[in-house]
Amino acid sequence: MTKLKYTTVIKGHYILKGNFSGPTPELVELIEDVLKKIKNKTEFNFNKEVLNIVVESNEDETFAYEVFMQIKNKLRDTLKTKKIGLKNITVDSAELKIPAEDLSLERIKDIKIEYVSDIKFENNNVILIINNLDEWFLKNQFLRNIPNVFFEKIEKLKEAGKKEFWELIWTSKNKCDCRFTLDPTVEALKKGWLKKYPMQGVYFFTPKLTAIFRAIENLILDEILNKLEFKEAIFPKQIPFEIWKKTGHLTGVPAEVFYLSPAKTRDISIFDDINDIIKITNTIPIEKYPSRLREPIGGYCYAQCPPFYWFFEKEIIPENVLPIKWYDKSGPSFRWESGGLHGFERLNEFHRIELVWLDSIEGVISIRNKLMECYKHIFDNILKLEWRMARVTPWYYAQSGKITATELIKEKGTIDYESYLPYRGPRESSEWLEFQNISIHGDKFVKTFKIKCNKDVELWTGCSGIGLERWAVTIISQYGMDLEQWPSNFQPYLKEAKQIIETKLITWP
Amino acid sequence: MTKLKYTTVIKGHYILKGNFSGPTPELVELIEDVLKKIKNKTEFNFNKEVLNIVVESNEDETFAYEVFMQIKNKLRDTLKTKKIGLKNITVDSAELKIPAEDLSLERIKDIKIEYVSDIKFENNNVILIINNLDEWFLKNQFLRNIPNVFFEKIEKLKEAGKKEFWELIWTSKNKCDCRFTLDPTVEALKKGWLKKYPMQGVYFFTPKLTAIFRAIENLILDEILNKLEFKEAIFPKQIPFEIWKKTGHLTGVPAEVFYLSPAKTRDISIFDDINDIIKITNTIPIEKYPSRLREPIGGYCYAQCPPFYWFFEKEIIPENVLPIKWYDKSGPSFRWESGGLHGFERLNEFHRIELVWLDSIEGVISIRNKLMECYKHIFDNILKLEWRMARVTPWYYAQSGKITATELIKEKGTIDYESYLPYRGPRESSEWLEFQNISIHGDKFVKTFKIKCNKDVELWTGCSGIGLERWAVTIISQYGMDLEQWPSNFQPYLKEAKQIIETKLITWP
Repeated sequence: MTKLKYTTVIKGHYILKGNFSGPTPELVELIEDVLKKIKNKTEFNFNKEVLNIVVESNEDETFAYEVFMQIKNKLRDTLKTKKIGLKNITVDSAELKIPAEDLSLERIKDIKIEYVSDIKFENNNVILIINNLDEWFLKNQFLRNIPNVFFEKIEKLKEAGKKEFWELIWTSKNKCDCRFTLDPTVEALKKGWLKKYPMQGVYFFTPKLTAIFRAIENLILDEILNKLEFKEAIFPKQIPFEIWKKTGHLTGVPAEVFYLSPAKTRDISIFDDINDIIKITNTIPIEKYPSRLREPIGGYCYAQCPPFYWFFEKEIIPENVLPIKWYDKSGPSFRWESGGLHGFERLNEFHRIELVWLDSIEGVISIRNKLMECYKHIFDNILKLEWRMARVTPWYYAQSGKITATELIKEKGTIDYESYLPYRGPRESSEWLEFQNISIHGDKFVKTFKIKCNKDVELWTGCSGIGLERWAVTIISQYGMDLEQWPSNFQPYLKEAKQIIETKLITWP
Repeated sequence: MTKLKYTTVIKGHYILKGNFSGPTPELVELIEDVLKKIKNKTEFNFNKEVLNIVVESNEDETFAYEVFMQIKNKLRDTLKTKKIGLKNITVDSAELKIPAEDLSLERIKDIKIEYVSDIKFENNNVILIINNLDEWFLKNQFLRNIPNVFFEKIEKLKEAGKKEFWELIWTSKNKCDCRFTLDPTVEALKKGWLKKYPMQGVYFFTPKLTAIFRAIENLILDEILNKLEFKEAIFPKQIPFEIWKKTGHLTGVPAEVFYLSPAKTRDISIFDDINDIIKITNTIPIEKYPSRLREPIGGYCYAQCPPFYWFFEKEIIPENVLPIKWYDKSGPSFRWESGGLHGFERLNEFHRIELVWLDSIEGVISIRNKLMECYKHIFDNILKLEWRMARVTPWYYAQSGKITATELIKEKGTIDYESYLPYRGPRESSEWLEFQNISIHGDKFVKTFKIKCNKDVELWTGCSGIGLERWAVTIISQYGMDLEQWPSNFQPYLKEAKQIIETKLITWP
């Protein structure tokens, strides 16, 4: 990121007490002498016993607030000799002057930033005005972060109209023969492979569809995980805000995650009135719950890999244990998808095998390439799918709030795998299904989580998410509900699924 | 449950309008005539133009409020002839008179019930007084549920001092040789088998411990799931309140579950100020989150089996598909355990294989017995553990708020499997670990979820939860950290785990 240019202006005052009898020429000279020794641009004036001080700083100067406090110390020493005291050291406001250049006033008017009470446009500068400043805020130099936030919001306004980045990079030779053109969810519901659950975007998978998921899982185990020596770990599914802060999800997708809140205390009596209402009226007074719950202690797993980066946080990895290749399939992910009906290809609760790896730059790229070969082999030769690949906005940008692809150097970024779903219409015009992806994050997470190597090796990470529901939807969409009609190379994995699908589990009306 | 005896008293009034000129003997006679035809006990009196009416009903009589409304209709018709109108039909209060018998006043004073404004003790009756009654409450006869809630609270007060029910029913012949007496969590942490995660009671399991979990899982697959033909299904982990209402968890363990709340809208701008604060100050203003979140839409999986009963809700199961034997291992369970430090034998996020079955009474018992044989074979002959079994309060009572075992007929109830953990001290005095359980619920869930059979077969259900972490803690506690020292019959399952444990994953300081 290029360094932002801006000027910080601190406006404050001290009150003069004791032997003070107005701004005598002698006093003014004393103050001028003190300010002369300060490198920053300063101003002062009197209003009765109030001495107003203005200090400016640029990026490469001492921070204006520190200077304001230095002036106070020096003045105090100097004025002590005249028996004048300084009281009520107060910062009244701060201004951040940012060169306007290509910023249009129109856009800037729409911007709101916490702590910023007003935004003005003056002499080709945008001026952000901050009132109500406390010591904690000033001392920690949080003012310095405001221009960044301002520019981020400008960027977002610019991006608002744009389409998401999408660039086709590969299309399979296989073309689906469209022998089956029905909606897999509708057909699978009829056959009792799954059942709609009374939560938005959630299904109960009976042994029939579960057996198909396990067949897919076994294929992935043989053809990817064991071949490339990925080892299974169990990543926690409770995600503390601190981890999401570092991955960017906390500020990137706060409206799409599920928050986890326990009760305020483990003493059940705080629910006594609620429980009485439920038992007496058989209705659930949902509106009474929030007041009994804690602030959320975190969220439920949305992207699966963040705990992996946490695991290695601040570790010095010995070069000889590299590469680290782990996968997790220990539980579902949750996303609060927008409403409306859809099938089991787009769920609020879904199941994914997540592969994550950590290695040198070359290592990370080489693992990614090997993985892509495995995927290609599976899709072309085993599952014989019609599929394609596209470069898209890296998910680690998209999920931290960016729409456009700002990082498309050859080896970094996200590739989406998409499959053609005949039931959605012609392959040229219908929406294909993103059924998995693969990403190289470069040093993004390695930096944020301060992961280092004991040798002079630059570390990168990569990840790839395999959606079981989406693989299943893809295969069913292209081959239909009769497993005998599925590709012959996949048949060895389907033995148990075929048996279970033949079994009468339960008859639906 | 025995039917409760109590009397409902409805006190209300009507205002007489029109041709009303006081309670003339003629008017009083008319009213008496109307009330004579009512079977319930009634009273009336006048206060100026207000006609006060009191109606009582016992369990086997027409509900007092209905009678109160019948009187209104009949009076209206009768008085119309005298050009007197009835207005402001109002119920002022209700009283529930419950024979006191063994209820001591001391206990009753402590009881609070929603809707009940006062509790009095009069002529050997407890009187619950309910004011502020609305039509919805009266029409739905919710008054009838209050005595139940009252007795439940009396029961709870009685139980408060009691110990949980626990009855030893079996002890293994195997005695642990105590060659290892260390705390498995401490040792496993040292060896990088797991890492404490920044959430209370949550660990990250590295491939080392994960491989041990999978070895246990494979053993269970061979010796139980495949032998007894249990089929895997995927139970959702989001639990709507309606399901927990039916299983009893909603009112039984509301202070121990995690609630799930999404954002109020999917428009990220409701988080703009929070995000600014995070980006500007690098601190997370947790206190600002609750106001952006919806009321909880449900909770996260606590007991694993409730979605199973939901799946069959209101279904007529064809006899020829019985027994239904499913298991789920698709994700973790969460419990908000009380604070304090403990190892990975007691977690807020843990992994369990949950077996659930539905069949005729004999079928359910027979499956339970076969399962118990499998468990015994595994613990005695393969894992060679020191273990025991105890009858305990059925979990489906405990988790709906009851402490004592009220249902210990021979075949119903919960059996806990406990293992001896040498690191906790002598086998006679230390606390053993409940590492799994098995239950028959009788018709509890079948009734609540209205599950029926197409033939004249009474259905029951059973379930058994296998805690992977707790099995691992048991084995490590009794045999130590060196897998070569683990029982020989378990060795075939440990090949991969032993390889992974030898691998240097990462060096900890």
